[in-house]
Amino acid sequence: MVNHLNGDNVRVAIIGGGAAGMSAGSRIKRLRPNWDVKVFERAPYVSHAPCGVPFYVSRMVERIEDLCAYDISHFKSERGIDVRTRTKIVEVGDGYLIGETDGKKMRFEWDKLLFATGARAGRLNVNCEELDGVLCVHYIENGERLKKLAEKSSSIVIIGSGYIGIELAEALTRIGKKVTVIEKESHPLPDFDEEISSIVMRRLCEKVNARFSESVVAIEGKDRVERIVTDRNEYKCDLVIMAVGSEPNVELAKQIGVEIGESGAIKTNSRMETSIENVYAAGDCAETTNIVTGKRDWIPLAVPANKMGYVAGVNISGYDMEFPGALKSQLTSFYDLEIGKTGLSEREAKREGYDVISATITTKTSARYLPNGTITLKAVADKEGKLLGVQAVGRKVAMRIYSAVSLLYKKSTVLDMFFADLPYYPPENRVWDPLVVCARQIFRKLNMP
Amino acid sequence: MVNHLNGDNVRVAIIGGGAAGMSAGSRIKRLRPNWDVKVFERAPYVSHAPCGVPFYVSRMVERIEDLCAYDISHFKSERGIDVRTRTKIVEVGDGYLIGETDGKKMRFEWDKLLFATGARAGRLNVNCEELDGVLCVHYIENGERLKKLAEKSSSIVIIGSGYIGIELAEALTRIGKKVTVIEKESHPLPDFDEEISSIVMRRLCEKVNARFSESVVAIEGKDRVERIVTDRNEYKCDLVIMAVGSEPNVELAKQIGVEIGESGAIKTNSRMETSIENVYAAGDCAETTNIVTGKRDWIPLAVPANKMGYVAGVNISGYDMEFPGALKSQLTSFYDLEIGKTGLSEREAKREGYDVISATITTKTSARYLPNGTITLKAVADKEGKLLGVQAVGRKVAMRIYSAVSLLYKKSTVLDMFFADLPYYPPENRVWDPLVVCARQIFRKLNMP
Repeated sequence: MVNHLNGDNVRVAIIGGGAAGMSAGSRIKRLRPNWDVKVFERAPYVSHAPCGVPFYVSRMVERIEDLCAYDISHFKSERGIDVRTRTKIVEVGDGYLIGETDGKKMRFEWDKLLFATGARAGRLNVNCEELDGVLCVHYIENGERLKKLAEKSSSIVIIGSGYIGIELAEALTRIGKKVTVIEKESHPLPDFDEEISSIVMRRLCEKVNARFSESVVAIEGKDRVERIVTDRNEYKCDLVIMAVGSEPNVELAKQIGVEIGESGAIKTNSRMETSIENVYAAGDCAETTNIVTGKRDWIPLAVPANKMGYVAGVNISGYDMEFPGALKSQLTSFYDLEIGKTGLSEREAKREGYDVISATITTKTSARYLPNGTITLKAVADKEGKLLGVQAVGRKVAMRIYSAVSLLYKKSTVLDMFFADLPYYPPENRVWDPLVVCARQIFRKLNMP
Repeated sequence: MVNHLNGDNVRVAIIGGGAAGMSAGSRIKRLRPNWDVKVFERAPYVSHAPCGVPFYVSRMVERIEDLCAYDISHFKSERGIDVRTRTKIVEVGDGYLIGETDGKKMRFEWDKLLFATGARAGRLNVNCEELDGVLCVHYIENGERLKKLAEKSSSIVIIGSGYIGIELAEALTRIGKKVTVIEKESHPLPDFDEEISSIVMRRLCEKVNARFSESVVAIEGKDRVERIVTDRNEYKCDLVIMAVGSEPNVELAKQIGVEIGESGAIKTNSRMETSIENVYAAGDCAETTNIVTGKRDWIPLAVPANKMGYVAGVNISGYDMEFPGALKSQLTSFYDLEIGKTGLSEREAKREGYDVISATITTKTSARYLPNGTITLKAVADKEGKLLGVQAVGRKVAMRIYSAVSLLYKKSTVLDMFFADLPYYPPENRVWDPLVVCARQIFRKLNMP
């Protein structure tokens, strides 16, 4: 299935200069140095990494520009990509698109098109979400605004306690701010099971005014935000941060008639092709495969976005590569607690119809006789012992998640998790690693010897 | 293949109370609580962990007893194992063995026998290895002697710079000792390739008098050791530590006629059965499968020893479990350098006849804009892209090795290493993890897009 358009004068248009877009653009210019590759980006930055915003807010990073993996000139001069920032695409049609830069419209032709339009912050659908002092951190530009506003705020409300919510809660409390976190679920980190999230909850309650099982019903204020009203309370505030998930940007894709998947993101195959020939999609706007369930899923995270972009770039260039999908792997932290997950939680697995078995253990992370930390780790499997997911909180979480990711990626069983030959070194682990102990607990529940 | 001896009065004899022996004994008592399980151990300890000796020498651990995972009373009262310490087995025959405790001989009958006799420190075959002041750390008892001698030594020589050699070099320099390390190879850590070991070499040379490409030809002294003579120099010393590898203890197994493998360790199948019915072997005295090469191999490390013991215990109990083999995974450190390896080095892979391709990268371990460390990582693959091994040195090594172990265990390719969905979190890694970058380098060498 090699594309016929592999001559020397192919024009590629990429809408969106985030992870997927820049990754694809770089790949194409490497494989097809003579092609004309244009990237159109609304923001003044490309290759922006909103994952870094909390570190900018907490003053660990001084300049917002430092959060961009590379600056524009690198992409232009080193990689030969024609980057057009501050350019909003206002119309997409068959073989053309119209961009608007500083109020001026321009038309561009394309032979191949990549949607890398990303995602935008989710909304609550309450009044006054557009009020001054209410913002999200989904775009890197907002990082700057957020920091400026936060510095002079006396009372900040964060709505949502997913990983973005808790990372910002830490950043803001670290610079001495009074923070209220409002979460409609009974626990923070709704993707995690309670055995894990309850540990984060305790630490969160020490650091912020944490309100669970409360729904925001209104955001109020005159010229700017003044208070949040929930179904149980009112909270005065002068800054509100919306961290209530996200949704894919698919308006432009719809305009050209590209098929949208059940998840609401652009339907793609494993080559990142959409329903229209020569039109591709990658990153937070595109669907991919959930490697555990085997179903199409929407997984808007930086790593799969980069790799989808890479694969789209390879295929746009006329080569062949398949993107195998993603595991929704996450790593974050809240103060001293490292937090990680890959695959499905027990709740998610049940929702997917799996007959689930799970085990949760809490153990020391180093040999008994050395300075020590604690990790709580939960593994979820089906009744045949197929591993479905691993979550952990505490110390030395990343290494366990790295192992679990690799096992899940290769469709492992709990027996594999037991036997994979993880090395022992007293300061790093115990002879029976927490993953191994957890696997053994599941053996028992499965009546294995 | 369930054993016929599954009644209520089965007598199991286990020779050796280390990792494999105690692991097997515990498993048997859990699955067959009424069976008579005896463990015979030469030392006054069981479940001893010589891996902890360097932390005892460096005064991080106060009491040598703390290095034992559990004390004897735990195994006796909690697990119901009849533990006989300070008991040397002097004769093994069909259905019986003779042990000697404090000079007194006793005969025991067995229906099933497990060799868990471990390994002993390697020798140089030079004069005077038995001289006072020359010792190895292979047995935990020696840990105590070593520490006492080291405390009053003014000049210590360590022969060998494998992981035991460098861990002791750190421990002894941390307590202010003057240490010379003599290594016959041109680099420390002979299991590693030079891209990795040369980094350790630089740090080693800062901390000790490190002598490479020198072979010890004599150990000299009158009443006790006074000097080491190499093919190039002489070194005055009052303590010599032998860290020149190890060899399996197979004398008793030979006595009963058990077949010995090519590696010199006891030949076993994946159920840990030897060539004689009802006789098993596990741990450092037994052969296992090298998961990468698929060949029988001798891998004397704590983790496989424990798991071989577990599997032997399950099978001795009349159930069925297979031990899949090991990857020779190692994790250690030298001062600020974390060091890890799994699978084959390039040198080892070539020796095994593989057509090898490799890539080595050095990169920062966190997002560019955060406090950072450096990791050097090398991956080895064959020309079809099958992953053969990963080695690393620097910061945040354990998590990469954990991922690589899990990938290797599942017989992955470099494409898997690229696509395994490792999560991104700015303080822990970069969007393109070092493993992913390394995989991409190998793509290039394999002319993949």
